[in-house]
Amino acid sequence: MIGTATDSLQNVGDEMHSWATDLFPICRSITGDGVRRTLQYLSELMPGLEMHEVPSGTQAFDWTVPDEWNVSGAYIEDENGRRIVDFARNNLHLVGYSEPVDKWLTLEELQPHLHSLPEQPTAIPYITSYYARRWGFCLSQEQRDQLPRGRYHVVVDSTLAAGSLTYGELIIPGADEKEILLSTYICHPSLANNELSGPVVTIAIAQWLAALESCRYTYRIVFIPETIGSIVYISGHLAELKKNVTAGFVVTCVGDDRAYSLLHSRHGNTLADRAATLVMSRHAPHYVEYSFLDRGSDERQYCSPGVDLPVVSIMRTKYNSYPEYHTSLDDLTLVTPAGLAGGYEAIRKCIVLLEHNRTYTVSTPCEPQLGKRGLYPTLSTRGAGYSMRGMTNVLAYSDGTLDLIDVATKVGLSGDEAMTIAEQLAGHGLLVAVDA
Amino acid sequence: MIGTATDSLQNVGDEMHSWATDLFPICRSITGDGVRRTLQYLSELMPGLEMHEVPSGTQAFDWTVPDEWNVSGAYIEDENGRRIVDFARNNLHLVGYSEPVDKWLTLEELQPHLHSLPEQPTAIPYITSYYARRWGFCLSQEQRDQLPRGRYHVVVDSTLAAGSLTYGELIIPGADEKEILLSTYICHPSLANNELSGPVVTIAIAQWLAALESCRYTYRIVFIPETIGSIVYISGHLAELKKNVTAGFVVTCVGDDRAYSLLHSRHGNTLADRAATLVMSRHAPHYVEYSFLDRGSDERQYCSPGVDLPVVSIMRTKYNSYPEYHTSLDDLTLVTPAGLAGGYEAIRKCIVLLEHNRTYTVSTPCEPQLGKRGLYPTLSTRGAGYSMRGMTNVLAYSDGTLDLIDVATKVGLSGDEAMTIAEQLAGHGLLVAVDA
Amino acid sequence: MIGTATDSLQNVGDEMHSWATDLFPICRSITGDGVRRTLQYLSELMPGLEMHEVPSGTQAFDWTVPDEWNVSGAYIEDENGRRIVDFARNNLHLVGYSEPVDKWLTLEELQPHLHSLPEQPTAIPYITSYYARRWGFCLSQEQRDQLPRGRYHVVVDSTLAAGSLTYGELIIPGADEKEILLSTYICHPSLANNELSGPVVTIAIAQWLAALESCRYTYRIVFIPETIGSIVYISGHLAELKKNVTAGFVVTCVGDDRAYSLLHSRHGNTLADRAATLVMSRHAPHYVEYSFLDRGSDERQYCSPGVDLPVVSIMRTKYNSYPEYHTSLDDLTLVTPAGLAGGYEAIRKCIVLLEHNRTYTVSTPCEPQLGKRGLYPTLSTRGAGYSMRGMTNVLAYSDGTLDLIDVATKVGLSGDEAMTIAEQLAGHGLLVAVDA
Repeated sequence: MIGTATDSLQNVGDEMHSWATDLFPICRSITGDGVRRTLQYLSELMPGLEMHEVPSGTQAFDWTVPDEWNVSGAYIEDENGRRIVDFARNNLHLVGYSEPVDKWLTLEELQPHLHSLPEQPTAIPYITSYYARRWGFCLSQEQRDQLPRGRYHVVVDSTLAAGSLTYGELIIPGADEKEILLSTYICHPSLANNELSGPVVTIAIAQWLAALESCRYTYRIVFIPETIGSIVYISGHLAELKKNVTAGFVVTCVGDDRAYSLLHSRHGNTLADRAATLVMSRHAPHYVEYSFLDRGSDERQYCSPGVDLPVVSIMRTKYNSYPEYHTSLDDLTLVTPAGLAGGYEAIRKCIVLLEHNRTYTVSTPCEPQLGKRGLYPTLSTRGAGYSMRGMTNVLAYSDGTLDLIDVATKVGLSGDEAMTIAEQLAGHGLLVAVDA
Repeated sequence: MIGTATDSLQNVGDEMHSWATDLFPICRSITGDGVRRTLQYLSELMPGLEMHEVPSGTQAFDWTVPDEWNVSGAYIEDENGRRIVDFARNNLHLVGYSEPVDKWLTLEELQPHLHSLPEQPTAIPYITSYYARRWGFCLSQEQRDQLPRGRYHVVVDSTLAAGSLTYGELIIPGADEKEILLSTYICHPSLANNELSGPVVTIAIAQWLAALESCRYTYRIVFIPETIGSIVYISGHLAELKKNVTAGFVVTCVGDDRAYSLLHSRHGNTLADRAATLVMSRHAPHYVEYSFLDRGSDERQYCSPGVDLPVVSIMRTKYNSYPEYHTSLDDLTLVTPAGLAGGYEAIRKCIVLLEHNRTYTVSTPCEPQLGKRGLYPTLSTRGAGYSMRGMTNVLAYSDGTLDLIDVATKVGLSGDEAMTIAEQLAGHGLLVAVDA
Repeated sequence: MIGTATDSLQNVGDEMHSWATDLFPICRSITGDGVRRTLQYLSELMPGLEMHEVPSGTQAFDWTVPDEWNVSGAYIEDENGRRIVDFARNNLHLVGYSEPVDKWLTLEELQPHLHSLPEQPTAIPYITSYYARRWGFCLSQEQRDQLPRGRYHVVVDSTLAAGSLTYGELIIPGADEKEILLSTYICHPSLANNELSGPVVTIAIAQWLAALESCRYTYRIVFIPETIGSIVYISGHLAELKKNVTAGFVVTCVGDDRAYSLLHSRHGNTLADRAATLVMSRHAPHYVEYSFLDRGSDERQYCSPGVDLPVVSIMRTKYNSYPEYHTSLDDLTLVTPAGLAGGYEAIRKCIVLLEHNRTYTVSTPCEPQLGKRGLYPTLSTRGAGYSMRGMTNVLAYSDGTLDLIDVATKVGLSGDEAMTIAEQLAGHGLLVAVDA
């Protein structure tokens, strides 16, 4: 069975955290050079990851790829020329997609362009305005409250012009053209759990997959700006996605060390839902289960009517449910090596389970004689057979209609236990896969 | 969207109560002039309501229309000629369908013909004997206990002879030949909740429907004697009922001001059940839910095997579950303008919901761009999108298989909210009805 | 309706207990003369029960019929020639299928061949080794602890040689070739609840069936060694079993006077499951419900993928769930006449219900007029109709899709009540069986 030695899990966690540390300062948005620099860094970790450019103005279903946004600098100076708010110090200070500006304003005139969080006075909020032209700055409520009356010089040295939207795509071919989809986003600036945890866990999974001798499924792994990126991607690949994707995972918020979460697909009972439910029930028995009504990332597109892919999201603490979300507090102290390693391992276990999931049928009516194969005690004492319940249950429920995930769920085995038993029985010719 | 201004609801309640007051003294039974006088009164309120006569002896499935019963007077006199029990004072005093009698009896001989309620000593019970010839009087236990020994003169001046069963039918045509059925009964004498609330609410609904500019469904509204009347009616209209009735409501016990109740159809999940459940969950969240096992009115016929119409009953306090039921205590103090208005409004809301219920599908894969249509905030702050959840949920679940009632139920919207959102989205071309 | 007078139930219980007393001392195993003597005794009680021999070496699916085992005697003697453990006193002392031995051993050499239960120090455990050659003795922990050091003479005078496996089969023909299967086992030596209760209750059921004037179903009643016997039997009759068996019952552990249990089939909702659930809900409302995951007897074979018969097991206290199980404490004080009678009656009631179970449809749309047939009160007082609810419910739910068991379950009637009502209504032509 494919697997990873547990002792390396800590190393994987440390490595992912160091990648996140490198990527943290880059100013990403839904377009622009920050996205390209991020993808460049990731493709050095994972050869085969290719960058694609989609020109501004391209139509994607109901949407249009917007102009590309790039920023050289942005700040607010006071009358003494002191830069009291500076994009160079924290790229969250600038409202995403701010248009260029260079003017002097009174504090009163400036206020409508400022954003802060009264309920979290030390945090800089994360704000964007992709599809309506405006400019603005984000700062802590504490700093805002102390701004003296007077005049301020605001400068946004940005460009908003025809360019392109950039995304990355990595295909790891398997024996079957059926695919597992992994989708993560690369469009938030310096945010850790609700951005970088996704790409770094996804790269680590890709490295693990690429190192396997072989795999059953083909893996389609995409790094896209959220919403517009998944819409553009789906719009360009709808037929093949619908034909091939067997299960998919949106990888986001997989880096903190608090909760585990599973957000179900719209239908709620697809192969991805069933695999994730079985894995999570053992990997993190207290995981929080969310229905599709709680959706918020690219499963909104993958599961939309007309697209309808079997996609779920396995997370640590879910977006919009932790206080640091979309603020400067979502940083690299919130995301930890152990948190990332836990998210990585949950998704990896789902993939291992999917790779081994088969619909089996028994090869003989009635129970087979396990004893003659050394699979059952030959001395019949009270309760002797009960120690073999896992094996006899897999046999009893493998009727050619239930796959191994269903059988394990029904009889109370973990995915690992069920896979081990099924392969042992298949090795003895007692189970035959009917979907092979 | 079709609707009624809330400020008129009190007026409707007052009006319905005044109609019930006019109708209260009439002695109705399953046949006879009381039914005709009642229908005459109702048809003055609602032109188009037509009276039909079905001759005694007519066969209707397993039943035969009985002889017609009419009463000129009925009383018990004591030896001094005092009328101690008199039909003229309260028509409940006479057992329904009592045959004529004029004789002197001792108290002992009289007793088997008397009916009273030991557990409710001040109440006159309501008793009938439609299909077996007998005569009898109903009186309070208190009065009965004080009857002195002696001789009594009993007179029932009634006729039981070939005639006809009378019912009323009103068709309000809609754009579609598919129908909504409203069925109420007119066969109880002076009883208020378990009789007159039904016809007066039904007339008010009919007036409201008739005043609408247009409606989608055709409305078939029948005023019938309970059981024999619905059987006669179904027997004469079975094919067209089965072809056209999309949802139906038995209107009974809709006048007191205590509980709300919903009695489900036999199948329990028809369009009528689903609409009523959604409406009641908001209109009266603490409503009592009854299964078809608790049935007791004409849904017994409409939902019987071989008829199988999608018919439920929305009530205030259900028959046989309130102490005044089938006694003289079920009077016009128990039924109130507010009680009637609440019953009226619950049924009206179901009709509004059914009129607007469609199966929609989205017009584009992936989410549409709501922002460019002014349907979504352009500044993306934390939680901004969550205020739009109702709209995005209607889009996410409108996949061409769920109707609007199912979508609203699934995503937790009221019928009103779902209708408003769906029509707004349809107006922007983002939802398309696939059942139109 | 077919039935048994209740006053005879005690007699049946006494009789069954006396048969079990006769059969108790016989040394049964999965083959051998003990099985033949047992079947001989049973066939005297129930003419028509035929013995079949299946030669050693016969292939049955994944299994092979083993050599036949017979025992003349077996004992352990101490140095003084005292038989301290003797098969002649209790046949549980010898491990089932022990090979012949005759040698002197030290206590240390003897120990690996001894079996006892530290947690139940007075009980002799029941141990077998059918498919791996060994010998051994079973004794109480108390006795074992007192064995002095020294030398012991162990003698097992047994034969293990080509012969045959013996089973009994009884066919009671009915009007229909569709069958009810009863399966019980005859392979345990002196054990009462987990052996003899099964065959004696099954014989009593067979006697009751044979005495009926007629029955609808054909009854296939088999007396087999557990596991290998059912596999051999199924292997020889698979096609006809799959074609004809409508419902089946594994009869085991039906003799103690503590719990009642129902172990469901793999699918859990077959006709056998539905009938047993309805019967048990009234016969023993506190019965323990087990899923197929708790299986342990021949339903393991009957319900296996590829065989898939609708077979459940109705028990008193289930095997492996009472302390005396598979020890010398499972004796004829544990099994009582009342216990056996209760088990007998539960299974008999299932058969009665199955014999009368039909899918009915009403003969007229709408409710029939019960009053004119004397089935309904003619005086309509408050609640009068509610006393007739059983009858009107059977009518309301008999729509040609639900069988009587489903109808009774849905409307809350016992099987007896539903059968009585249905036959009364069918007698009046108001219900018609659509599966007749």
